[in-house]
This record gives sequence, C-alpha cells and structure tokens, in this order.
Amino acid sequence: MSLLIKNGRIITAADDFTGDLLIEDETITAVGRNLPAKADTTIDAKGLLVMPGGIDPHVHLDMPFMGTFSSDTHETGTRAALFGGTTTVIDFVLQKQGHSLHEALAEWNGRASGTAVGDYSFHMAVTDYNDNTKKEIRQMVEEEGITSFKTFMAYKGALMIDDRQMTALMQEVKRQGGLVTVHATNGDMIDYLIAQHRAEGKLSPLYHYLSQPEVTEAEASGRFADIANYTGCPGYIVHLTCEGALNAVRNATRRNQTVLVETCIQYLLLDASLYEKDFDGAKWVMSPPLRKAKDRETLWAGINQGLVRVVATDHCPFLWKQKLMGEKDFSKTPNGHPAIEHRMELLYSEGVHKGRISLNKYVEVASTNAAKIFGMWPRKGTLAPGSDADIVLFDPNEKHTLSAATHHMNVDYSAYEGWEVTGKVKTVLLRGRVAINNNTCLVEKGYGQFIKRNKV
Amino acid sequence: MSLLIKNGRIITAADDFTGDLLIEDETITAVGRNLPAKADTTIDAKGLLVMPGGIDPHVHLDMPFMGTFSSDTHETGTRAALFGGTTTVIDFVLQKQGHSLHEALAEWNGRASGTAVGDYSFHMAVTDYNDNTKKEIRQMVEEEGITSFKTFMAYKGALMIDDRQMTALMQEVKRQGGLVTVHATNGDMIDYLIAQHRAEGKLSPLYHYLSQPEVTEAEASGRFADIANYTGCPGYIVHLTCEGALNAVRNATRRNQTVLVETCIQYLLLDASLYEKDFDGAKWVMSPPLRKAKDRETLWAGINQGLVRVVATDHCPFLWKQKLMGEKDFSKTPNGHPAIEHRMELLYSEGVHKGRISLNKYVEVASTNAAKIFGMWPRKGTLAPGSDADIVLFDPNEKHTLSAATHHMNVDYSAYEGWEVTGKVKTVLLRGRVAINNNTCLVEKGYGQFIKRNKV
Amino acid sequence: MSLLIKNGRIITAADDFTGDLLIEDETITAVGRNLPAKADTTIDAKGLLVMPGGIDPHVHLDMPFMGTFSSDTHETGTRAALFGGTTTVIDFVLQKQGHSLHEALAEWNGRASGTAVGDYSFHMAVTDYNDNTKKEIRQMVEEEGITSFKTFMAYKGALMIDDRQMTALMQEVKRQGGLVTVHATNGDMIDYLIAQHRAEGKLSPLYHYLSQPEVTEAEASGRFADIANYTGCPGYIVHLTCEGALNAVRNATRRNQTVLVETCIQYLLLDASLYEKDFDGAKWVMSPPLRKAKDRETLWAGINQGLVRVVATDHCPFLWKQKLMGEKDFSKTPNGHPAIEHRMELLYSEGVHKGRISLNKYVEVASTNAAKIFGMWPRKGTLAPGSDADIVLFDPNEKHTLSAATHHMNVDYSAYEGWEVTGKVKTVLLRGRVAINNNTCLVEKGYGQFIKRNKV
Amino acid sequence: MSLLIKNGRIITAADDFTGDLLIEDETITAVGRNLPAKADTTIDAKGLLVMPGGIDPHVHLDMPFMGTFSSDTHETGTRAALFGGTTTVIDFVLQKQGHSLHEALAEWNGRASGTAVGDYSFHMAVTDYNDNTKKEIRQMVEEEGITSFKTFMAYKGALMIDDRQMTALMQEVKRQGGLVTVHATNGDMIDYLIAQHRAEGKLSPLYHYLSQPEVTEAEASGRFADIANYTGCPGYIVHLTCEGALNAVRNATRRNQTVLVETCIQYLLLDASLYEKDFDGAKWVMSPPLRKAKDRETLWAGINQGLVRVVATDHCPFLWKQKLMGEKDFSKTPNGHPAIEHRMELLYSEGVHKGRISLNKYVEVASTNAAKIFGMWPRKGTLAPGSDADIVLFDPNEKHTLSAATHHMNVDYSAYEGWEVTGKVKTVLLRGRVAINNNTCLVEKGYGQFIKRNKV
Repeated sequence: MSLLIKNGRIITAADDFTGDLLIEDETITAVGRNLPAKADTTIDAKGLLVMPGGIDPHVHLDMPFMGTFSSDTHETGTRAALFGGTTTVIDFVLQKQGHSLHEALAEWNGRASGTAVGDYSFHMAVTDYNDNTKKEIRQMVEEEGITSFKTFMAYKGALMIDDRQMTALMQEVKRQGGLVTVHATNGDMIDYLIAQHRAEGKLSPLYHYLSQPEVTEAEASGRFADIANYTGCPGYIVHLTCEGALNAVRNATRRNQTVLVETCIQYLLLDASLYEKDFDGAKWVMSPPLRKAKDRETLWAGINQGLVRVVATDHCPFLWKQKLMGEKDFSKTPNGHPAIEHRMELLYSEGVHKGRISLNKYVEVASTNAAKIFGMWPRKGTLAPGSDADIVLFDPNEKHTLSAATHHMNVDYSAYEGWEVTGKVKTVLLRGRVAINNNTCLVEKGYGQFIKRNKV
Repeated sequence: MSLLIKNGRIITAADDFTGDLLIEDETITAVGRNLPAKADTTIDAKGLLVMPGGIDPHVHLDMPFMGTFSSDTHETGTRAALFGGTTTVIDFVLQKQGHSLHEALAEWNGRASGTAVGDYSFHMAVTDYNDNTKKEIRQMVEEEGITSFKTFMAYKGALMIDDRQMTALMQEVKRQGGLVTVHATNGDMIDYLIAQHRAEGKLSPLYHYLSQPEVTEAEASGRFADIANYTGCPGYIVHLTCEGALNAVRNATRRNQTVLVETCIQYLLLDASLYEKDFDGAKWVMSPPLRKAKDRETLWAGINQGLVRVVATDHCPFLWKQKLMGEKDFSKTPNGHPAIEHRMELLYSEGVHKGRISLNKYVEVASTNAAKIFGMWPRKGTLAPGSDADIVLFDPNEKHTLSAATHHMNVDYSAYEGWEVTGKVKTVLLRGRVAINNNTCLVEKGYGQFIKRNKV
Repeated sequence: MSLLIKNGRIITAADDFTGDLLIEDETITAVGRNLPAKADTTIDAKGLLVMPGGIDPHVHLDMPFMGTFSSDTHETGTRAALFGGTTTVIDFVLQKQGHSLHEALAEWNGRASGTAVGDYSFHMAVTDYNDNTKKEIRQMVEEEGITSFKTFMAYKGALMIDDRQMTALMQEVKRQGGLVTVHATNGDMIDYLIAQHRAEGKLSPLYHYLSQPEVTEAEASGRFADIANYTGCPGYIVHLTCEGALNAVRNATRRNQTVLVETCIQYLLLDASLYEKDFDGAKWVMSPPLRKAKDRETLWAGINQGLVRVVATDHCPFLWKQKLMGEKDFSKTPNGHPAIEHRMELLYSEGVHKGRISLNKYVEVASTNAAKIFGMWPRKGTLAPGSDADIVLFDPNEKHTLSAATHHMNVDYSAYEGWEVTGKVKTVLLRGRVAINNNTCLVEKGYGQFIKRNKV
Repeated sequence: MSLLIKNGRIITAADDFTGDLLIEDETITAVGRNLPAKADTTIDAKGLLVMPGGIDPHVHLDMPFMGTFSSDTHETGTRAALFGGTTTVIDFVLQKQGHSLHEALAEWNGRASGTAVGDYSFHMAVTDYNDNTKKEIRQMVEEEGITSFKTFMAYKGALMIDDRQMTALMQEVKRQGGLVTVHATNGDMIDYLIAQHRAEGKLSPLYHYLSQPEVTEAEASGRFADIANYTGCPGYIVHLTCEGALNAVRNATRRNQTVLVETCIQYLLLDASLYEKDFDGAKWVMSPPLRKAKDRETLWAGINQGLVRVVATDHCPFLWKQKLMGEKDFSKTPNGHPAIEHRMELLYSEGVHKGRISLNKYVEVASTNAAKIFGMWPRKGTLAPGSDADIVLFDPNEKHTLSAATHHMNVDYSAYEGWEVTGKVKTVLLRGRVAINNNTCLVEKGYGQFIKRNKV
C-alpha cells in the first residue's frame, strides 16, 4: 500500500520546503520535489502545512483519582487527540503505595490495551520507592519499554515521595538509562494552606488557586533541580507554570546543569482571573493552578530561549457532575481540565499565527522534542524516511470556534468555549492510515498501539 | 545532471536515518529509502555520515590588520574550508572610520569576487556609525543581502564604537530587520592593561592573555545584552569564551531575553596553559585569548543547554614571520589563528566521538543554526528538497593526525600540530558538484558564490 | 566651658538609653545616668532624642554647572543643613579637564574657606586622570586629608572618564588607601537618548526622565562593580536609585565582593509620576531621575539588608529662574534639587515614624556610616567620649509642614512643599556650641571647619 | 557598690575610644574621659580592650542526644564560657515529639536553674507543632521570655518538622512577635546518604562529611528562605557553613527579603581535610560538617557584607569515650564539638589580628547582634549606661596556645589543640562582679541568671 501527499508545505523541527511525501504501508519512505512515485492513493496538500503528528506526553485517561475516574477513556481520549492532530500520547500509570509497579502496569494495560484509537505509551509514576521497586525500574526499562518515571512532590499520603526516595530513585534511574519527571510543588505547604482555607470556610475555587502560590512551585522546582544535579540523573519538570519555577531552572544553568521543562497549553493562554468566576472557576481547577499574565509571558519567552522544550496538556477531564463534587469545598473538586483535542490548534493559533513562535519551533515543542526526550524518535516526532507516517495536514488559515458542542472529548463543557482559532487540522494519518478526514474518524477502537520507548 | 548518494546515514539537525539523497543540478530534490531514481552519477555512502556542509560564520580572509594581511586569501581560505567540510563561510567587511560602508564593501568585493572557491557571504563591520552609515544600513539589508552588522567594543581608535553608537545602530538595525553581532570585550580596560604591561616590560605572549582577563569579556557581554534588551534588537555575541560572559547571557534569560551566542572551536579544546610556552604561545595570540579548563566545561554545557548556538573559528591566520612582528612585544603580534579547515573534524572528534554532544546537535551548531540566524536557511544548513546540495560525506571512524605538513591553509604552522582526530571528511559537494574527493579539490578558483542573505 | 544635656534618650548606631551627656569645650567627655557633673550650662532633653549630628556626604554648594552656579553657597547651604540637623557635609571639588586637582582644590577653598557655617569636607572629583593626576592622588590623601575620589561614568566631554582611566585610577587610589566613588550611569546611552528626544522635539522634563532609563544605571553600576572587583579598590556608588542597580550590587556579593551604596532621600520618598506635571517637573530634574514605586521599596529593603549604607541628598539647588533655562529644552535645565535641610527630618518621619527602619539604623545611615566610610569617625558620626560634640536634640512627636516659605535654603521653591513631617530638630550643637535653637542660627559664617579625613 | 575601669580602649559595635567606665552594682552607669567618680574599686585597663561580654546564642549544655548527654553541664559550660569572655549563652530546650513545650522547659529548668555560673537563656526547639503547641508559642513569648523557636529540617523521626509544620509555625511565631531559627539541611537526603554509606560499609568519620554534601544545606536554606518570605516571619539560619547556603540568602535579597545568618567559629577556621585523619576526625563530627577552603572565604566575606550577623559555636562537647560510640559507625558518633571557651579569642586572633574584620565588627558579631536579634539588647550586648556590666578586658597582644590541658570545658580533648592565639581574655565581669581574673573563676555555681527576652 502506498500513499503520496503532494505539493504540501512540509515542516519539521529543522526544515520547511514545498514538496511531496511518499508513504509505503506504515512508514514514510521518501520526501522530495515532484517525487516520480506512483502511489495507490494521492492526496493533494496544496496550501496545507504537512507536519509530524503531535505528541502529547502528559495525559491522564480513565484514571482513578479523588474518588472518581477521569472521563476520557483510552478510546475517547486518543480519538479526540487524533481529531486535534495528536497521534501519540503518553499516559501515566500510577503505582499504588504498598503495591508493585507491575501491578499498576497490569491494571493500566487492562484499560488501554485494545481500546486506544491512537498510539500511546506509559510513564510509570513511582509513589512508593523501595527495594522491590528498585528492581522493577530495570525491568520497566529493559522489558517494558517504559523509560520515564514520574514522581510527585505533592499529594502526601497518596502519591508523594520524600526527598530520600527521590534521591534514591534518581540514582537508580540514572543507572538504568532512564529519566525522572516530576510534579514539582511543595506538597506540605499546599496541604497546610488547603487545611487553613478550609478551616476558615474559604471553599470556592479561588482558594484552590490561593492554596498553591507561586512559591510552592518555585521552591520544589529548585529542590528537584538540586537533587537532579547531585545525582546526575536527567530530570524533567512537567507542567511548569510560572516565573519563579522557570527562574529556578535558569539559575541551574549557572552550574552547567540542564533541566528539561514542559509547560501546558493552558498556562500559555489562560490566567488566574478565571478563578474569580465563582464556581464556574472549577472548570480550571487543576494543579498547579493557572497563574498571572506575567507568567504567561515568561513561558512564551522560555520556549524561545530553548528552556521550555515541550507543550503538553495534562489532559484530565471530568464531567460537570464530577466537578460538582467540589461545589461546597474546592479541595474535593477533581483536578484537571480537558485539552487533548485542542493543543495543536491553540498553540498554532496563539503561537505561530500571532507571531510568538516560528513554525519550526511549533513542531519542535508540539512533537519532536517529546519524541526525543522520551525515546520514541526517530520513529515518532519527525517526517523522515523510516519514520512512522504520523502526519497532520493543516490549513493555516481556516478559522473556527471551539465548543463543547463540537469537540470529541468525553466531557460536557469546554474550557475554551467560544475561543476563536486560526488554523485547522484537516487530515491526520497514523502509521500510514488516514485516521481523520472531513471531521470523521476513520480508524477503529484498538488501532492505537503501545509504543515501547528507548533509553535516553 | 543528477547525482545519487546511496545508503548513507543522513543526519540533519532534526533527523537521523539511513537512505539515499538525490541531487539534480545544484539542488537536493529528494531523500528517501531506496529512492528509485536513476542518476547520472551514483556515490555509495555506506558506512558514512551524510551531513549538510559546514557553515563557518566567523572568518577573516585577506584582511588588512595590524599592518599586515591575514595570510589566507578568499581562494586559499575557502579551499581549505572545503577540505574540512565547510562549504560556506561568512567573512567580515571592515568599514574604515571616516569612510562609508559601500567603500569597504567595494574593497572586499575586489578581493573576494571571482576568487573564492567555496561559497561566502559578508558581515558588515560598522566602525563609525553616523547619519550616512544609518542610511547605508537599509541599503545593505535591502540591496546587498548583508543583514548582519558587526560591532567592536574593543580596539579603540580603530574599530571600537561607543555605547552611544551601539544604541543608535541597534535601533536602526532592528528597524531594518537585521542583527547586530559583537566582539564583546571592554576595550578601555584592555588598552589600559596592555599599556601597563608594556610599561612594566612584560612583553611575552603570556601578557596578551593577562591583558584580557575574564572580567573584560563578562562586563562587555552584560553591557551588550543590556543595550540589546533596551533596543529590542536581536544580538549575537561572537567568540564567547568564558563562564563570566555566558553567565551574563544566562542572567539575561531572567528578563525573558534571548541573546545569541557563538563560541569557537579553540575555546572548546584549548586553554591558557599554552601561553606559558614562551614565544611559541604567539600561535594562540588571539582576542579574546584562550581561557581556563573551567571555561571549556562551561562552553560544552552551554551548547547542550541551547545557549551556545554556533561553533565557528574566528579563522585569522598569519605566517610565522608575521607572528614574529610581536616577538619583542605581544601587542604587536597579529591576532588570530588558523582553524577554518579543522573545525568540523575537531568538533566531531572532541564533541560527538567523545560523547559530549549528539550528532543532531553537531549539525545544528556546525551548520544549521548559523544558516538560520544569518538568513541563509533553508538554502544552506540542511539536507532537504530545495536546499543547495552542499554535502559532507564523513567517515566517523577514520583516525588521522593534524599537521601543518598536510593542511591546506596558507600558514606555515598548525595550532593543532599532532592532534589525533577520529572522523574524517571524505567527500564534499558544493551546489551539486563534487568539490573535494580523495583529498583533492575538484572545483576551481571562482566557483564560490556570494550568498545574499535574508532578513531574520 | 562645659555643657550638660540631661535626661535625653541618647541614640547611636549601637545604643539607646536614657541619660546625660557631658561636653567640655568642643568635645563629648562623658555619657551616663545621672552624671554628677556640674556644668556651665545645662539643657534638659527630657522627651527628646539626642543623636549624633547628621552627615550629608553628597552636596554641591556654589558649584559651577551647566552655565550657572548652584544657588546655595557654602554659607547658606551649611546653615540650612544645620537647621535640619546636619552638622557636616561633604562637598565636591570638580577637576577641570586639562587642569590639575590642586587648581580645583584652590578654587573650591576660595569659595568655602571662611564662609561655611557648618563643618565640611571635600571629595575630589577626578575628571581627567593622567600621570600628573596620579601623583596628586597621593598628595590629596597624605597632605590634604581628601581620601575619596569621585568619578563620573556620564557627562562625556565634561566630567566623564572612560573605563581605562577608571581602572588606572582605582589601582592608584587603592595603593594610597583611598576610596573611589562613582556616578554610575551609562553616559553614552544617555547622551544618545537626549539627542534623540531633542531631535524628535520631545523637550519637556518628562524626557529628562525617559533619557535615563533604569538600564543606564543598572549597566554602569555592574560595570563599576566589575572594575572595583578587578582592581580590589573600595568602591562606593553615590545616589543609587533603582532595583536594577541594587541588583548589580547584590549579584556582586556572590563573588564575595562588598560594594558600598548610597541613596538619597528623594529616591526613598518620591517617584517619576512627578515628571508628568509639565514644566513643574523641572523641580525634580536631577540625575539620575526619580524612579518607580517598586524602586522605592527596593531601596528601603536595601537599607534594612545592610546593602544601602548611606542616605544623602545630592543637594544641588537652583532658583526657579535658573530652572527656567530649560523651559524649552529639558537638557538645558540645571540638574539638581534642594534637600540639604530636610533629609534628617524626612528620613525620620518616613523611615522611623512609619516603622520602616529602627532608630539605630536611622543614625547609622544618616550619620555614622558616612563618618566611617569617609574617614571622619570617631571624631564625627557618634556620641562617644572624645567625639566632637555635634549633637541633635530631636522631638520625635512634633508635626510640621515643609515649605519654601519657611526653609533656609537659598532657593525659591520647595521640592517638598506641603509635606507633613512628624519629628522636628529642636536644638543642634556643633563642636560644643549651640548652633541652632528656637529656629535660630546662633553660629556665624566661618564657624564651619574643613575636616581632614583619614584613610579608610 | 561601685567599680571604675580606667584608661581602657573601650570598644562597642559603633564606638572606639579611650576612657573610663563606671559600674554601680550590676549596671554600667557612665562612660567618659577621666570620669571624676570615686569608686569602691578601680581597675586599670591601660593597654587593654574593654568590650561587651560575648554572647554565644548557640550552645547545647547537658543535652540528651544520641543516647548520651553533652558533657558540659550548665555549670561547667557557662563557667568555661566565662573563662573565654562569653558572659551569656542561649541554650536549646528540645521539645519531645508527642509532648508539650512546657514539659521540655520544666526539664531544662531542672538542669539549669541554680546551676549556671554565667547568664543564660533558652531557645525553644519545636519538634512537634500542633494545636497545643500553637497555644504554647504565645505563652512562651508572653510569659516565659522565650521569643525564638528553633526548628530542624533534619533528624527525621526525632527532631525534624516538615514544611507544613514549618509554614504553620512561622505564621504563629510572626503573630506573636517572635523569630524562627533553623537547622537548615535536607534531612531526607542526608538520611538516605547515611544509609547508603552504611550499606556500603563506609563507616569512618569521612563518611559523616560525605553524607551531608553542600547541596543538602544549600537546598534547605533556600527552602527556609522561601517559607519565611511567604509567611513574613523573621527567619534566622543557625550554623550556616557554605557558599551554596549563603548564596541562597544572597539570592533572597533580590526579592527585598532579609534572612538572618549565624555561622560558627569552626566553619571560619577549619575545613574538611580534618576528616581524612581516620577516627581522629570524630573530634569534628558535627552537623553540618566542616566544609572546604572556599567556603571559609565565603563566610569571612559574608561577615563583612553584613549578611552573616552572628558567630556562635554550636558548642556540644562529648568526651572521647562518648565519641568512641561511633568508632565502628560514623552515624553513631555523638555530633558536636567543644568551642564555648575559645570563640572570642579565636575570632579575635583569626579575624581582628589577621586583619579580616574590624574591632567594631568583632563586637557586633560576637555580642551585639545576638543581643539585638534575640531580644536581650540593650541590657546585654553593649557598653552603655543602663546596660548590665558584662565586660571583657582583653589583652590584644598576649599570645597563648589552646590545649585540653588548660581549657575549662568538661571534655578530654581539644578541637584546637596547639592552636596559637594572639589576644587573651584577662578579666571578665558579669553583672558588675569580677567573674574571671588571673585565670580564676570568682563567681559561684548558681550566680548565672536566666535572661527573659523581649519580642523582636
């Protein structure tokens, strides 16, 4: 089976040229000007951008959390991702404290396997590091193709590990050729502030925000950088939101350290003024919370400085009735918001279209860097001979409006309701198959594959 | 005319795959696996790296300086560059104080035009900024394809401009869509220290080094960053050598500023202990001078942090008899050293082979970034359909030894005599023609073209 | 002659107790509880603070500047100072470029000697450093008791020295046991911005402010710290106004350097919104200009951090008709404002009374530190046996209002017209004599002595 | 009873003059030149420095720790302190986790009351912060005169509190007008490294040092500064040892924060090379451990920068047989070293005599600042009318040698055996009584009083 995409403007993290792209079966086999190839199928991409499928390395699908489950399954979530041009996601397996990594992996495989529409991989969240877990690190890397280990410096008693475990884990992960990622906020301070606000009867979503002030993230980011530097283990901070935290990373450059940073689309676009809308603010109750306008500017600058390398979503949707669990107490609101479908279009519209970032940078932070950092490149994350034919055809000029009425995520509100976007995903290929066309999903549940990842 | 390179390991700043590359006339037209094309000529690149031709954006050819001329002409210099895998260089036109930019350009065109073997472009060094020069900035950008303007914060009375001129120049260059590059060292402090050392009879090459302490570069780098930030003009620091100067750039990240940084191959490999060799140290009398071991570590880290974006040479060779002008007084030694031929091989050997940087990063700092920053991309700096077929075929395993006996630069000593290198340039194509093969140059004087550059 | 001050609350930089203070002739001879001494005169200080006379180390009296003279002579200026509790001032002698330090000193002695009412000393402003000046440095220190050397990084062509001269001067001053003080703003940038604003017809006082943006001071402060660090010479930044500049000093602490900092009362109290009052803003045309509210906060914090050691005035008054010289062009407005009389009361009211600084800190920054830094301690700056009896009796509760109608400075407007102050100078002693009492000056022109200063 | 000290060189944090000092009963009543007073006793202090008695705000007397008790009781410890010129110490009361502050205070009062020879006060170490403790904070401040609360970020399970408790505690202490002090090292990291070294059989004192690398202190110091800044509570870091930690404090100045810093005499004088002496290194097993030569330089600079405000000892002596508890395992070595007797002489000899600090600064960091910070000033910490007559007469020229053979601390080795000191304590007064003279203690057990302290 062969497929020829003709006359597109082909963009990678490094290149930008007009030409053709040939796919045989699941794989890109050639790019060129006027490729002479005759293909079984030809798509005319004139006027369209042809880019690598997006990679969202931070999603939570069908995840048990705060007494409920995030509302997108691996089926609905990866399908919505495809509609938005994201062909691969990395989901989080959460170890239960007192249980093994393998148990958790089995549980997640049970939900994801045969279910996903788009490709996916797993980070392993280590919430209880001990001698048994230590042995499992190697097994995850060598046998399961899971090379990144998520840690939480918050959520004490549930997910949080202390600095003793962090230090030990980082030494072992370094030894095994993996990477440690971190939710870097000071859990103790946050727990205290939540308790204090609750004791004072301050229960609206605004107090979710005020319980996680910038210092809680700045402090933990600096602490994580310190431990990473001491152990020599590659460290990656997920969902970094603010100036204080990015400054911790900038300061670390002075000792010749490199700390990898991810932000999420919402932190680039939204700010904490949304929490002043009474309970409507629950739509954006997530951790860390939205920040200030100055923080948005810092994050855009961080992307252009090369310090912020990935734009993800932390997609973790909940139905409005689930959000209502926190109606009387912000601390009971399930944390998270739906974004998996909109990341690529929003980042294009607000980033490229508005002149904040270049097209190459767009591909880099939306796809290539995640593939490289997490060991999926060059299979994923670029358009080169030998790479999976995960491809987005994108109309840079088409305008449309985001809405819960039209999105494909399993959630009954939109965090971006009415947002005007310039640029639209037209066609998406996943491993050579047309997965999305004419706003229709053409691949079936179970088409998505688990992607084993390499050491970094 | 078509040429097919088969079975190479093709490396760009973003990609790494094994396949073929098709060239028609001067241009790459396709890359792929098992390209079906039939070409007039086929080269088997099995076991070789296939990379974009190197770009050295910092060379001084046939340049009048300190009462003499640098010893490589545009012919010998660009030919030596080709031998080393560098297909394009950017040379510096120096305005004479009291004269126009056009006069200087005419003079340089007189020497370079019809002479160069490899492709070249010009930076315009503005040494006397005034109302007339201001008008010429626009003309250089719009008419001459010269979009980068070099400034000197040192060499008072000859090349140095003061902060008044710097501020005014940056405002105008920003307006015209160009870039200001800078030799960032505090000329006044250096002049004083030179005078002081001379007055004290301290005349050996060691005092060249001691006349330019780290603070002179750290200070000026910070000052330049300040002015760039104030004016909003893109700023690029050439030949950055030391921790103090890179820290000025790192500090600037805190205000959301991006300062572009170039280092040179010698600052990554050599250190100031070479100045303790009596007059032999004159081989490395250059400005800034070599620094300490800790500075080398900082520069390698800076490359991986993404802060150091380009590795150039500041190639400015002088024959030993020219160096002897400074035998009795370091301040009379022509400044500069020969490296144009060795940059690509040395950076591969010390960087990639020794595991300090990745192959993608190698291509990025040796070629792609310079092309992008200086407005030659995607014509230069990558291997994509539509790009010039400037290509290096590189054996990553071949060992050889550098020596004046075998190099092609017009200089009778080597700054790297006896240096063992792993990795060798085997074949070089320039705009589709095989320029170097079997250690022979196959293109003639005058083949090199002047490359007009775009706004940034 | 003996004088006993009884029952006061005696405050020094270190102490705070209620008791008596005995003076014999010009000198304090004892402090104690219920001193048994019988004195020729007794003053009851019950309810009053008894503090060392203020020292203002930054005043410009009868100074030729911008085609006119500052309007307070050594007589009127030091008398006004006494009314405000400042018993000693340090005035600036300005070398003329092309002339010697001694010539300048002779000129200033001509104006000050026999004229001053209060005690005074001189800083020597070096505006032309050369071999002759170098010899004079030693003579100033050893013979004239002038141990501090002022430099200007601004006012090119008139007062500014370049970094070559700065480096050389600092080396020599260090050798002679002196101190270099600096007006740290980037003169070249400012000259450019002034010229630019004038060319654009932007001529109101607001453009004075906009011609000296924060970066011009931050940059020069960092540069001065660099040169001080390199030479090892003690360095003192006068009239530091802003966060950027103080951050340069804070950064320098990381390399174990101490940079001495002075701010002025106006930068603690006023801000740049005053420049929006059309030509009325000319009252505050001074260099550096007033800054933003955030800078005021930084300066108060800097005092409590111990980094800002002195609060002076940069008193340089001009009559309104002199200010009118700049009516059509801000750059022709004589720079400076009148404050010599109000510093002590304003700093008490805004600092101590409002709870920003302690009483000890007040004495420290208003008197003791200047005496120590500039070599007048323990003769001046404290209340200890053996010290000059320069004493202020201060009512901490009396409220009054500042006004040109009541001040004693020779200037026909007040920069603080209508300012409500809590705390009033009641009685001032200078070397044992009651100089001010009942709002009357009791010492005559010429009573003020020149104070030779020691090495630091 | 009156006592007159004549002709001494009287030094305070602010003053330096030659004169007399009159004491009536326990209190200084006058200082002056040739005080006419007739006193019951006269001491001729000609040639001697007359300084405020030293204050050591960091000592551990008779403290249960690691299964034993520190070997100096309140009697032997305060007596040894007096021999060395330290007239007041602040000891640490340690709350037992699960018990109240009052219980701990009662226990300590039981040991100290009627026992101490010199004056003393208590810090309250809060190791278990809860609702009950919260109430006790106010009682400690208002009723007991204990205004400083010590926290441990290390010694998990015994003394350590987490960041939740720290945040809550700081809010309450701020409300009550107190101060929080901290042992700032990352306990989790240290626990891990200790366990790791033990598991690897690395058991010598060297591994005590290697289990507490600089990062553990730098990290915790930054974290404590963050929490202090967030809560607005005054924060004081005890026994700061290293560049990394002081840089955390320096960085905090950028946000206008002031963090109070204490170092100890050993960190200014000794370094980690002592741990290479096999088990002899156990003499210096303390936490934090000794650091590197570069850290000593940082601390001396920090004193002169005004950032390091207090030089204490962390005196916590153990007999050699107690130290032997760790002969086979560094982690069982009781932590601490004896220094209470030597601080004043060593700091004079290495600081003042060697020209690193001034005499005023000496008094400031050895006495006055501790009195001010901890609410004992002006009763303690200075020589002013109304202050306690705690006075040291010091011969600045007498040389002597430190040794266990001659010291008065209850420990059978000296950490400074053979150290040559210039400067000797000759006579010490405590509240008007001659406590030490001719190397003899003249006051009896129980003379020492508990000093209630004021809010800060």
